[in-house]
Amino acid sequence: MPIVKTLFGVLFLFALSSSILAQKFDGLALTPPMGWNSWNKFGCDVDEKLIRETSDAIVASGMKAAGYEYVVIDDCWQGERDSLGFIRSDPKRFPSGMKALGDHIHSKGLKFGIYSDVGAKTCGGRPGSRGYEYQDAKTYASWGVDYLKYDWCNNEGLNAVGAYTTMRDALFSTGRPIVFSICEWGDNKPWEWAKNIGHLWRTTGDITHCWDCEENHGTWSSFGIMRILDKQKGLKIHAGPGRWNDPDMLEVGNGMTVSEDRAHFSMWAMLAAPLIAGNDVRSMSNETRETLSNKEVIAVNQDPLGAQGFPAVSEDGLEIWAKPLSNDAWAICFLNRSKETKDVNFNWKENLIKDDFAQKHLDAKKVTYKIRDLWSKRDMGTTEKPLRTVVPPHDVLMFRLTK
Amino acid sequence: MPIVKTLFGVLFLFALSSSILAQKFDGLALTPPMGWNSWNKFGCDVDEKLIRETSDAIVASGMKAAGYEYVVIDDCWQGERDSLGFIRSDPKRFPSGMKALGDHIHSKGLKFGIYSDVGAKTCGGRPGSRGYEYQDAKTYASWGVDYLKYDWCNNEGLNAVGAYTTMRDALFSTGRPIVFSICEWGDNKPWEWAKNIGHLWRTTGDITHCWDCEENHGTWSSFGIMRILDKQKGLKIHAGPGRWNDPDMLEVGNGMTVSEDRAHFSMWAMLAAPLIAGNDVRSMSNETRETLSNKEVIAVNQDPLGAQGFPAVSEDGLEIWAKPLSNDAWAICFLNRSKETKDVNFNWKENLIKDDFAQKHLDAKKVTYKIRDLWSKRDMGTTEKPLRTVVPPHDVLMFRLTK
Repeated sequence: MPIVKTLFGVLFLFALSSSILAQKFDGLALTPPMGWNSWNKFGCDVDEKLIRETSDAIVASGMKAAGYEYVVIDDCWQGERDSLGFIRSDPKRFPSGMKALGDHIHSKGLKFGIYSDVGAKTCGGRPGSRGYEYQDAKTYASWGVDYLKYDWCNNEGLNAVGAYTTMRDALFSTGRPIVFSICEWGDNKPWEWAKNIGHLWRTTGDITHCWDCEENHGTWSSFGIMRILDKQKGLKIHAGPGRWNDPDMLEVGNGMTVSEDRAHFSMWAMLAAPLIAGNDVRSMSNETRETLSNKEVIAVNQDPLGAQGFPAVSEDGLEIWAKPLSNDAWAICFLNRSKETKDVNFNWKENLIKDDFAQKHLDAKKVTYKIRDLWSKRDMGTTEKPLRTVVPPHDVLMFRLTK
Repeated sequence: MPIVKTLFGVLFLFALSSSILAQKFDGLALTPPMGWNSWNKFGCDVDEKLIRETSDAIVASGMKAAGYEYVVIDDCWQGERDSLGFIRSDPKRFPSGMKALGDHIHSKGLKFGIYSDVGAKTCGGRPGSRGYEYQDAKTYASWGVDYLKYDWCNNEGLNAVGAYTTMRDALFSTGRPIVFSICEWGDNKPWEWAKNIGHLWRTTGDITHCWDCEENHGTWSSFGIMRILDKQKGLKIHAGPGRWNDPDMLEVGNGMTVSEDRAHFSMWAMLAAPLIAGNDVRSMSNETRETLSNKEVIAVNQDPLGAQGFPAVSEDGLEIWAKPLSNDAWAICFLNRSKETKDVNFNWKENLIKDDFAQKHLDAKKVTYKIRDLWSKRDMGTTEKPLRTVVPPHDVLMFRLTK
């Protein structure tokens, strides 16, 4: 029948109202999620030893103290489903089981993230959640999962809103607060519909560890840092506490230069992007650790205002990005996209910077701001004087301006 | 990640091939399904006593011998889900449980049908299967279910192909052959995509027991027999063994006149429609039983050629429908849609009837056919002579022509 008969009107109203009650967990991800994910470095080659050691290293390296929280196992943790259809972890790679692994992660004061896919199979060919959403959500909750990254492989033309809403409702039904990371690659403009479904949504295809390349893999492409950055245009109005544009996980420490890693990390901070490290934190260099753990840069990312940064000035390969912060402060980042060192001669008073969406403006004519260099960690005077300096190639200067 | 990396190419191919293997159960519903369903007469008011008594009555009345096979409980059999998420029957209405009920149905030599919905709630506000597809399919199989009617209420914009495909794959995964009845009301032209997903698909909104009315229920309408009939135009090319257009269940015995019931039943036979009785078979009149049990009319419906009938001639409220049958036979039905008795003077030799899709033709100039009247159950001569007779209002004459 097309709809319930009049006789059942009361039941129908109940059905409607319970449908309206379906929601994501609120109060989570009020600032961009921070953590680590296995994919960028390890791909399908995950096991419980890696995850345990990584959790330990996140604490020992100071990354936890810097704010990294979610330890997310990406694809390929799955084994078969049991006779009742419940998903089990790969018994060879995770012999102790996922509950024990979650307990270990939690014992470190960290949170436990996991991965699945809207399709019948994940990208790596493991069992996906299609048609098993409630069963999988219940299983994740029983393991103590706090975060789900939910991929878009083998979607076979499913309606993205529908597929992600089903899993949202399944997660919500468990009663366990779980951050929901929508990995839909921007295929269906998730920024337009995902804010009531998940806490973050991918805006693009996969990132890769190069400055400005595009790698063609046959049926798909991955994109360098600048390519991803350029795809964020126009998206800032959709971001805010509990709802973040996700330009994909970090490639810091995965092969770019220290300058490039610094620029990448700074720009992700400016974008209010999730900061999900993707390197081998057990063996990272001091430079990588310092880049990932720069608390002043992270504070820009984690600012409670939750505004996404934007390019205020762009000229000849040099871009000046701005991000309004709480207490009328601003983050300003000079990004040198080119291979040549760029001279900077920036008169703060001649450059009114406005964020119409956040209803903030930086007007150095009226207000004198103190300037803090977030990478050299030095105070740099005020906006009374023009800024005269240089930006090395593929690098940034990043400042916090406070009244 | 958008797709598995090259490293996992083999896994990916495996995922693709297993996806291609996903299918409906073939070899089922090679002729239009026949049976009984609770909705048209009883709506939400179902319980195990009704279903047991109905099963018994289907045998005792001779309906089983006439071909009726599936006993389908429509909406409102459901109770709550258990702690693992498995659906349970309403403990008040089905205190013995569904397995016991299925066993009773099977003990009668009949088959067991059940109902669910693509949404989180059924039309009657009971738990739907959204996100629980595999769990529900597994449960149905454990109960011995042979047939699933799957409704479209509370779909909340789900992609119909995706939603029905998920349940198809879930049913297939159980290993139990289950006829899959797609009740999507024709919203998304299921005749164009459903033949590889289900065995039958609704083509319209709900039927109701009147000749030519349209009942407006506020947000939805139900349709009389003639209204439904007219909505079948153009659909015949999609029907065949294992894939049937479903103009909704029978209203025979639910309040129309004996003539109207006969016409309705005859036309559903001509349409190669599923013949799912929808009356109270425990207390039906002799006329209703005889209408539903006319084996010669049923044979037209169940003819193994599986061709759907079509209107060959239409004039002033009198329609002549034709349906090619196996062994170069034909069914011909004179339908009087009007309130007046219609005279018939039909010269077989002057009316070549062609079914281009079935590649059949009835050419009485070249071939002499014997004529059998399927309601009076008499032989009526041949096509050598014109047919001179009358058709009462809202009634039919139905013939089988054989060489």
